[in-house]
This record gives sequence, C-alpha cells and structure tokens, in this order.
Amino acid sequence: MRINEFKQILEKKRADFAIFCNSDSSKQNANMLYFSGYKGVGALIVPRSKPAFLVVPQMEIERARKSMVKKAYSMEKKRFFESIYKIIKKNKIKTGSIAIDKNNFTLNSYKHFKKQFKKIKAKDVSFDCAKLREIKTEKEIKFLKKSCAYADKILQKAIKHFKSFKTESEAAAFLEYETKKNGLEISFNPIVASGSNGSMPHHEPSTKKIKKGFCVMDFGVKYMGYCSDITRTIFIGKISRKEKEMYNMLLSIQKNSISQIKNNKKCSELYDFVNKSLGKYKKSFTHGLGHGVGVEIHELPNLTLNSKDKIRNNMVFTIEPGVYFPKRFGIRIEDTVLFKNKPLVLTKTSKDLLII
Amino acid sequence: MRINEFKQILEKKRADFAIFCNSDSSKQNANMLYFSGYKGVGALIVPRSKPAFLVVPQMEIERARKSMVKKAYSMEKKRFFESIYKIIKKNKIKTGSIAIDKNNFTLNSYKHFKKQFKKIKAKDVSFDCAKLREIKTEKEIKFLKKSCAYADKILQKAIKHFKSFKTESEAAAFLEYETKKNGLEISFNPIVASGSNGSMPHHEPSTKKIKKGFCVMDFGVKYMGYCSDITRTIFIGKISRKEKEMYNMLLSIQKNSISQIKNNKKCSELYDFVNKSLGKYKKSFTHGLGHGVGVEIHELPNLTLNSKDKIRNNMVFTIEPGVYFPKRFGIRIEDTVLFKNKPLVLTKTSKDLLII
Repeated sequence: MRINEFKQILEKKRADFAIFCNSDSSKQNANMLYFSGYKGVGALIVPRSKPAFLVVPQMEIERARKSMVKKAYSMEKKRFFESIYKIIKKNKIKTGSIAIDKNNFTLNSYKHFKKQFKKIKAKDVSFDCAKLREIKTEKEIKFLKKSCAYADKILQKAIKHFKSFKTESEAAAFLEYETKKNGLEISFNPIVASGSNGSMPHHEPSTKKIKKGFCVMDFGVKYMGYCSDITRTIFIGKISRKEKEMYNMLLSIQKNSISQIKNNKKCSELYDFVNKSLGKYKKSFTHGLGHGVGVEIHELPNLTLNSKDKIRNNMVFTIEPGVYFPKRFGIRIEDTVLFKNKPLVLTKTSKDLLII
Repeated sequence: MRINEFKQILEKKRADFAIFCNSDSSKQNANMLYFSGYKGVGALIVPRSKPAFLVVPQMEIERARKSMVKKAYSMEKKRFFESIYKIIKKNKIKTGSIAIDKNNFTLNSYKHFKKQFKKIKAKDVSFDCAKLREIKTEKEIKFLKKSCAYADKILQKAIKHFKSFKTESEAAAFLEYETKKNGLEISFNPIVASGSNGSMPHHEPSTKKIKKGFCVMDFGVKYMGYCSDITRTIFIGKISRKEKEMYNMLLSIQKNSISQIKNNKKCSELYDFVNKSLGKYKKSFTHGLGHGVGVEIHELPNLTLNSKDKIRNNMVFTIEPGVYFPKRFGIRIEDTVLFKNKPLVLTKTSKDLLII
C-alpha cells in the first residue's frame, strides 16, 4: 500500500533507499507486509527513485514473486546484510543515507548492517510509517470491513454454540477453527475468560470447566492481512440486579463514547470522557480505551490518557471500555470503528446482554 | 528455568542486572518467558545478587504474580523505562552496567532506555542466553516429550480424517482446533501444501481444493510453552514408480542422518552428509537440515552448511531434509530429536509413505 507516498517521505528525508527486514520466519515485519504484502524472511528494499524489490532466501523466491512487489532476488540467509549489500551495489543504488524503522531494528541487526554499509547515515522512519498506516486507503477499508464481518459471523456462531463448550479452551478452539477453515488467520489468540478469570484482561483460556457469571470473549481475524477486533461479554447462570446494572452502565458508556467521536477530536478526551463517566468505578478500568487496527492489531491512533492523537477521516480503531474486579469478574465491550465523517461501527454483533 | 546459572553469567560479565523487555502484547520475549514463564507486556529484571522480579502494566499484575517470578510491580505502559528506572532505584540495585539481549532490543527502545539510565554500560548476553537455552533441563525435556506426543496424536488424527478435508485450510484448521481444544498453542501456523504448492517450503494453506499428488503437512504444538515440530508428506491419488522412489530415497536419507548423530558431531557435517546423499537432487534441498526447539521454534543448534554448532547431550532439534521442484511438488520428512547419549526420536508418527 501507498509505496509512492512513502517514496515522497524518502525524498523529504533525503534517504537514498529504505530497508525493512525480517530475519525470523516465525515473526512478521508489519511495514514490509504493508508495503509489499510479503510476510516471510527477507528484506524489502525501497529505493527513492527505482522500483522496490525483495531479497529473500532461495526457498522463499516463489512466494516473494507472488507479492505486490514482483521483483525478488535470492540471498544467503546466513549472510543477510552481505547478500543485500551486493544486490544493492549491483542495482547501482546510492548508499549515502538510508531510512529504517528503528522500532523494529535490533541493536545486533544494526551492528551487522553497519559492517557492510560502513559510512551510511541512518534516518528513522518508524513514526512516518505509523502515521502513513494510521489513515486507511479505500482498499484497506474494504479489507477491514470484510475482516469485521467475518469476526462477527464467527463470534455469533460461537455464542450460538456456547452451551456445548465445556471449557474456555474449547470455545477459543472453536473460534480459531472457524477462522482457519475460512482460510483466514486470527489477529491474536482469542480470549475466553469466565467468572473470576475475567478480571485479567489478557487471561489465557483454561482447560478447566467454564465458570458461571460474566464471560468475556475477545476475538478477531485477519482478512487479506487486515485485523478485526471485537469483545462481547455474556452471562452464564442467574444474574443479580447489581450485575445487570453494571453491564448496562458499561454498555451505555461504550455507546456514548462512540457518539462523542468527531473529526479532530483528541483521543485523550475520549478516554477522559469514559473515565469520568465510570465515576467510582474508574479505578477498575485498567487499560486504554482503544487502539488503531490495520496490518497490526495495535496501531495508531492510541486512545489513552496521554495520547497526542486526534480523530481523522479513514481511521479505523477500537472502542473498548472495561471494568475488572480482581478475583471476582470482568466486563469488556469492544467494537472496531471506522471514522468517515462520522463514526461507523464495523463490528455489528448485538451488545444487548445475553444470559445463557 | 536456570535463572541461577544466568546469574553466574552476570557475575562473570560484571553486570549489575539484566533486563528483558516486551512492549507489544501481540509479541513474546523468549528469554523473559524462559526465565520467568511470563508472556505479557513488561520487563523482567534479574539483579545479580537479588531475586528477580517483573515490572508490568497494572492490567497484567495478577498474571505476572502467577509466573515463576512471583514478585511483580505495576508500571505505566506509556512511560516504560521511566517506571522501570524508579523501581530499580527504589530496590537499591546498582546501575553501573547492564546485561541485555541485543538480538531483541530495538534501536528506539535503547534510545528510550538510555534517556533514563544515562551512564550505564550495556553488555550483550544474546549469545549467552541462546547457549543456556540450547541445553535442556530435565524439566524442559519432560515438556518437550509431552509436546511431541501431543503433536503426534493430533497429526495422526488429522491424517485419519484427511479424506474429509476439501481444502488445505480445512486440514490446517483441524490441526489447530485439536491443539486449542487441548488447551495448547500451535508452535507456528501449520503448513498444508498439496501438489505444486508443496514446492514452497513455507506455503500458506489455501481455500482451493486439495491437489492430487504429494501433500506436505508441517505442524507443532506448544506444551507449557515448549515447541514440537513434525512434518509428514502423504500422497493423494495414484502414485508413479518414480514418485515412490523419490519419497523412499528421502526417507532413507532422513533415517540415515539421524543414525549419524553422536556426541560432539559437527552439525555442518550432518548437513553435509544429507547434501552428499541427495546426489543430483542436492540443488532441490533449499533449506537447512534442522534447528533446535525450545520456548522458540527456532533455537540453537543450527544444522546448516555454515554452522559452528556441535551435538551435545540434552539438545533437542529437528532433522528435516526436503526436496522441492518448482511448480511440480515437494517432499519433506521431519522429526524432533533429543540427543541423550544417542539420538532419540521424540515424534513417533509412522514415516512409511501413506497413499490415500
């Protein structure tokens, strides 16, 4: 996406080329994925005034040539930067200054890189890339909408089958199975947290019997590499009036905070609105109000207390207030929202309290 | 694991403390996981002569206190190193020199870190940690054996059901579902690559109909955080004599290479043995012979051409020769092997060619 706009950034920063690397096949470099669509081991080279290309291990050549950047060279994985240096020289690309993402470049990678590119000047484009990725293109919005529609469909199917799950793990496995069967990936390990487990926002599903009370289900898929993110909290068993009130209080705060979203609004103000609305329960709200989503599950904007971000057209982000009471229970309600002149909720699963 | 041995390394390197960080909840820091068992956002601090502790966002406190390192402090996520600095000072830990894993410390993290710890001297322990993790403890071997047993059981179940899968994605989804249902994680995204897709060693399962011919299935789980890794290649449809010969040639090379494993053997020699055995097909073997497994799917030792590693007792690694013919097919046969006086194959699923 937007590789030509990125080249303008290189122009402005006077960088001869940019390099995004991934040396570990079990990891992904989000910028490499964003600009090229390629996910494997290797490096994406974006020269300021020539077409971009990939440098990948021999075993990945076929896969790399199927990416948006169709040009790919083979390299020796053991001599990562040595191979890249040779290919850059062969392509007659200037090596006076380079743009790198310093948020994703390790100290040792940089050491190895500098052994080859001795006198090169490195300029950090981590923030530029994050800002570029913060505003989605129409194509990305299409992917994100589809990703949310899949997340809705799969979550609703899991909720419908919920009574057949004995353990949190079974429910989480079901969510993943339906995701994979559709040829999609999960955007993070699904959270299914019942009863007192719900008080840990990032609880890992357990193989013990599902507990009665509130059950938090936080889930998302990746469609064409783009993440969705949704949380619903259901209730198992007999609910008390106080529990019902607590849920409905959080739900109206979630809905009200969405209606507060408008162009140019400070994200910190949205967070503050929720915090104030929670009154005496604000201490039980232990995380941010939301985060951007895209090729990564956590992108800009940040909807937190100290955020400097503002709402703009074509941003896609979550709104996810929650309350957590250690050793008792937790409730979280989360939607993925697109801002396009007004807030458009992309995850459409009902938020009315479901008691089963 | 082995945190006391790690403290001896700190002693030897004259480092006052070590720090391992993870600032992204969708990622894991393998050394933090290895030493503490904690997987979330935060930092693990290992002082040379005091008990280790975690510093985590408020929302992760409950989870952190359930880790091997029971002591945990809460911090502000936005002010990561500022919070850590305050806690380190409060605990009266010297800040003359620090040990960090430079393979997993980004340029920007280091910049933020140095803003707080101005005059500190940083020593790289990436290799020391990798070498420590290369030799498994008895407890780790127990986990790895169990992990391999689960991988066997689940892969065999998938092979048994194979005829019911219409697409590669369905087969991959089944593998994951069975994994998650057991409360386990996958150690990497399963590969199911049929027909010509098999010529890409890291092919992603497709939602198109499974092709006839060889079908490569590469899969592993995580049990208590520990990875298993197994590949079997089955055949769908009517096989030719030449295809059968090719499979059996690769199988005997795989078995012979395992029988070559002995104490002190150079890993590069094992790779070389396979390469030579492949004769005219050696060009079709486009990746390494294997890699260590542990809390990460790729650890030491490296079984590659340029490896300096040698086989030692209590190492656990894969043996996975493969041949790949672009646009035609691929075959790979992989086991996870423990070396304990002799090679012990931990993945026990039959390697006889299965034609379905």
